[in-house]
Amino acid sequence: MPRGTPQTLRPFRWRAERMYPDTEIVSRTADGIERYDYSEYGDRVARLANALDTAGIGDEARVGTFCWNHHRHFETYFGVPDSGRQLHTINPLLPDEHIQYIVENATDELLFVDPSLAEKLAGAYDADAFGSVEQFVVMADSVPEIDLDPVTDYESFIAEQEPEYDWPALPEDREAGMCYTSGTTGRPKGVEYSQRMLWSHTMATVTPQGLGIEDTDVVMPVVPMFHVNAWGMPFSTTAAGAKHVYPGPSPDPADIAHLIEEEGVTITAGVPTVWLGLLEYLEENDVDLSSLEEIVIGGSAAPEAVIRQFDELGVDVLHAWGMTEMSPIGSVARLKPGMDEWDAADRHAKRGKQGLMVPGLEFKIIDEDGKEVEWDGEEFGELWVRGPWVTTEYFERPEANEEDFEDGWLKTGDVVSVDADGYIQIVDRAKDVIKSGGEWISSVELENALMAHDDVAEATVVGVPHERWQERPVAFVVPGGDVDQDVLSDELLEMIAEDYPKWWVPDDVEYIDEVPKTATGKFSKKDLREEYADASLVEGEAPAEAAPEDE
Amino acid sequence: MPRGTPQTLRPFRWRAERMYPDTEIVSRTADGIERYDYSEYGDRVARLANALDTAGIGDEARVGTFCWNHHRHFETYFGVPDSGRQLHTINPLLPDEHIQYIVENATDELLFVDPSLAEKLAGAYDADAFGSVEQFVVMADSVPEIDLDPVTDYESFIAEQEPEYDWPALPEDREAGMCYTSGTTGRPKGVEYSQRMLWSHTMATVTPQGLGIEDTDVVMPVVPMFHVNAWGMPFSTTAAGAKHVYPGPSPDPADIAHLIEEEGVTITAGVPTVWLGLLEYLEENDVDLSSLEEIVIGGSAAPEAVIRQFDELGVDVLHAWGMTEMSPIGSVARLKPGMDEWDAADRHAKRGKQGLMVPGLEFKIIDEDGKEVEWDGEEFGELWVRGPWVTTEYFERPEANEEDFEDGWLKTGDVVSVDADGYIQIVDRAKDVIKSGGEWISSVELENALMAHDDVAEATVVGVPHERWQERPVAFVVPGGDVDQDVLSDELLEMIAEDYPKWWVPDDVEYIDEVPKTATGKFSKKDLREEYADASLVEGEAPAEAAPEDE
Repeated sequence: MPRGTPQTLRPFRWRAERMYPDTEIVSRTADGIERYDYSEYGDRVARLANALDTAGIGDEARVGTFCWNHHRHFETYFGVPDSGRQLHTINPLLPDEHIQYIVENATDELLFVDPSLAEKLAGAYDADAFGSVEQFVVMADSVPEIDLDPVTDYESFIAEQEPEYDWPALPEDREAGMCYTSGTTGRPKGVEYSQRMLWSHTMATVTPQGLGIEDTDVVMPVVPMFHVNAWGMPFSTTAAGAKHVYPGPSPDPADIAHLIEEEGVTITAGVPTVWLGLLEYLEENDVDLSSLEEIVIGGSAAPEAVIRQFDELGVDVLHAWGMTEMSPIGSVARLKPGMDEWDAADRHAKRGKQGLMVPGLEFKIIDEDGKEVEWDGEEFGELWVRGPWVTTEYFERPEANEEDFEDGWLKTGDVVSVDADGYIQIVDRAKDVIKSGGEWISSVELENALMAHDDVAEATVVGVPHERWQERPVAFVVPGGDVDQDVLSDELLEMIAEDYPKWWVPDDVEYIDEVPKTATGKFSKKDLREEYADASLVEGEAPAEAAPEDE
Repeated sequence: MPRGTPQTLRPFRWRAERMYPDTEIVSRTADGIERYDYSEYGDRVARLANALDTAGIGDEARVGTFCWNHHRHFETYFGVPDSGRQLHTINPLLPDEHIQYIVENATDELLFVDPSLAEKLAGAYDADAFGSVEQFVVMADSVPEIDLDPVTDYESFIAEQEPEYDWPALPEDREAGMCYTSGTTGRPKGVEYSQRMLWSHTMATVTPQGLGIEDTDVVMPVVPMFHVNAWGMPFSTTAAGAKHVYPGPSPDPADIAHLIEEEGVTITAGVPTVWLGLLEYLEENDVDLSSLEEIVIGGSAAPEAVIRQFDELGVDVLHAWGMTEMSPIGSVARLKPGMDEWDAADRHAKRGKQGLMVPGLEFKIIDEDGKEVEWDGEEFGELWVRGPWVTTEYFERPEANEEDFEDGWLKTGDVVSVDADGYIQIVDRAKDVIKSGGEWISSVELENALMAHDDVAEATVVGVPHERWQERPVAFVVPGGDVDQDVLSDELLEMIAEDYPKWWVPDDVEYIDEVPKTATGKFSKKDLREEYADASLVEGEAPAEAAPEDE
């Protein structure tokens, strides 16, 4: 019996409503900027909870959203879980069959959908898969012409409701959120977030070791709210009593620049491409970024050039790492005391790592022999993580549970090193790392080395099966124009041999027209691996001296 | 089944040891300053856990400490709970019979005791009450001449032990800490802290809404480590990876000033008298306070003069409020956005309140009719609080539980108002507030008003029983020299009548030589109330028009 009352989201909303009634929530919509305060937010959240009751949505039902970042979506963030239900954010960029699988698997009873996404949802609609859905609600004040039924608009849905609600006292293990991982292979896996997980993640991300959110901050998550709760920012910003800015559907760099300038954004967050776009926009346009203190970058690695350019503009890039399974934030690359006096290149290199695990989490890095690696920034192994906001199971996927969890640890599938300062750095994905003769070779490092050559447009390196060494690396190169392939291959292999152990040198360089990509734009190595293995080009060709035992 | 692993203290220590191995822990001892780093701290904590095993101390035993603030005491803060045991900090300033009761009630198996407190403990020793104690360990590197048996010294106790320990995976409801409230009446009540409560309190106090501790901070708790874990600072400072400074036994203002200056303290904490002492010292001595950013003041109300004087020195006073039952921090008086532009008097008045409840807690204020009061800074009632780090029971005290808890709420016994900005302010203790004719009168406000008169040295106001009005206020005044009591009484009552509703005007002014005090130096109103009621002076003397119905 834990003493103390359950850990739930309700006190965060209550605190903001009562202590910061006049603090603003700003939302970019198709009709322009909408703005109101926590006081009105509280009223509308209560109306929403009443509306869900009136619509007959179950007390503990799963409620799906198919939406971009705006105030109505934010209202579901507290209205759904605080009333005891489970907020299931759906990624509208997924292929139809994944959307069907997800809605069916989650048995969502109601779906909130943006006007701009309603057609996409109607296209994915399948009577069987959507059999649990009793109501569609379009996030607008009127219903567009759309083939979804029964359908209403959000403003009508909540209009007649009371702005007060008798919020239930919930157990902390009540499911409050849900998000599916969009893996590169296989069916998406559902991750459920209990009230307690979201509470813990919120507290951890509010700390200075996490995102460090104060009531003076103005927080704009550009990362979509369908991507693991926009990294928890709608919750953490509320807990801090800070101002929210939601950039609406498909914001372009001009929208982002404008919102930072007009609303005085201090903290924003998103994937690297967003910030590359903003940097390009800044070259041509005069934007006042003086309010902006931090850009949180995650989702994929932040290029050092982005870190450097924002540093020159007086903005700190906070590189963060996490996973859907982790609610999602695990580590943040903040500089330690004294490091801010380092020269720029060293600072940027440190900020380019995935950073320091936030308080409350533990990790270990396990090499191929099951041993923990040294904290030397060199050795690498798979990252295992555990903590109060790290899930210990997938939704209804026992076979995946067996693979991905062990003794409360989540095996992240990321292969990382950790330096003496405790900063982790992703070296590869576990499924892409090349296991050769009892050693691991980072495909990512080889790819970066290859792509540094002027005549290489794109390159990927995969491990192909090998009788003696288990796997050997093979490089697939998209040439950057008309090149002599034999000459280029020799140059590339020599280049690798100079900088890496000789068993890292690929056994072969193959030329292709483009690297096959997944639905989310990542390199699809699986296809290449299979294709090459089928072609059986590699057997017997591996130079015997290429393996680590010969060193 | 909550997903995610249990909330325990271990990851905080692990993080500091691994990510901040070189960060310092500094301790003022009888032999001068000792200093080491988290790396050595980790080794010594492991040695301590092994030593407890070797000594045969039970896996879940309660281990008592009778110590000031120093590095060895800090080692017990993680060594005891991380090994599965319960750290029971004992207030050495309590009378012997309370110490006996506490040790017997808690059944401590081992007691750590400071050399300077060993005689006090030996004096309180009672074979029956101390029957559970198997071992005494003196916090030093040798054992003084002392009548405690069996006894050893701390350095010998841990010397032969391995600096590694197989830390157990603990359930989060394992009892990790314990502290007894030293109420003004009756037996002390034990409050147990589970691992989860201390985890939650640590996360909340690390946030910018709590104490806001970063890895650049240097944190010195002057508040004793036997007072509710020094407000949790040994835990929160570790979670943040910050430097610790422990001021040792009975630090005087010169010691405190010296440590701030030499160690670069950024955050310190203690009761108001400590800071009054430091201000006096600063008048006569040249001290460099430039590193100091925040002084956390709690335990009793921070005088506005202290807030103002430190403000003029560029140091923010953070007024905090909490209770033993709350692990202990509840609210912190930080200024909200914009308030730092207020003029000094308004800023100081706001900082003088008990402040804003930190994220994760909820409160309500209940008046005599059981209704919630308005947030207007005027109405007052009893403060009820709940949250993950607020206990929901006392140790083995069912009768007290019935009185002090209701539906998961802790009835704090503090009578407070809350203003429109959400800042609570303590008006009185519930047992001291005077209930007259269906309204409440704040004894504290009347006392402050009386003590503002030049001829009053000390004053206290108590409610005495009254047939018609239930209670009526009577003032007890210690005159500040030779005064005409009749003249002074008239002046005082006129003064009150001008500033307060007329039913607040005391029915009588009595002159006494001194206000009786409790063991901890607080006014003992109970004695006065009984004495005065016995004397039966008040019956029939209450002016009929003094009651609220007549307004």
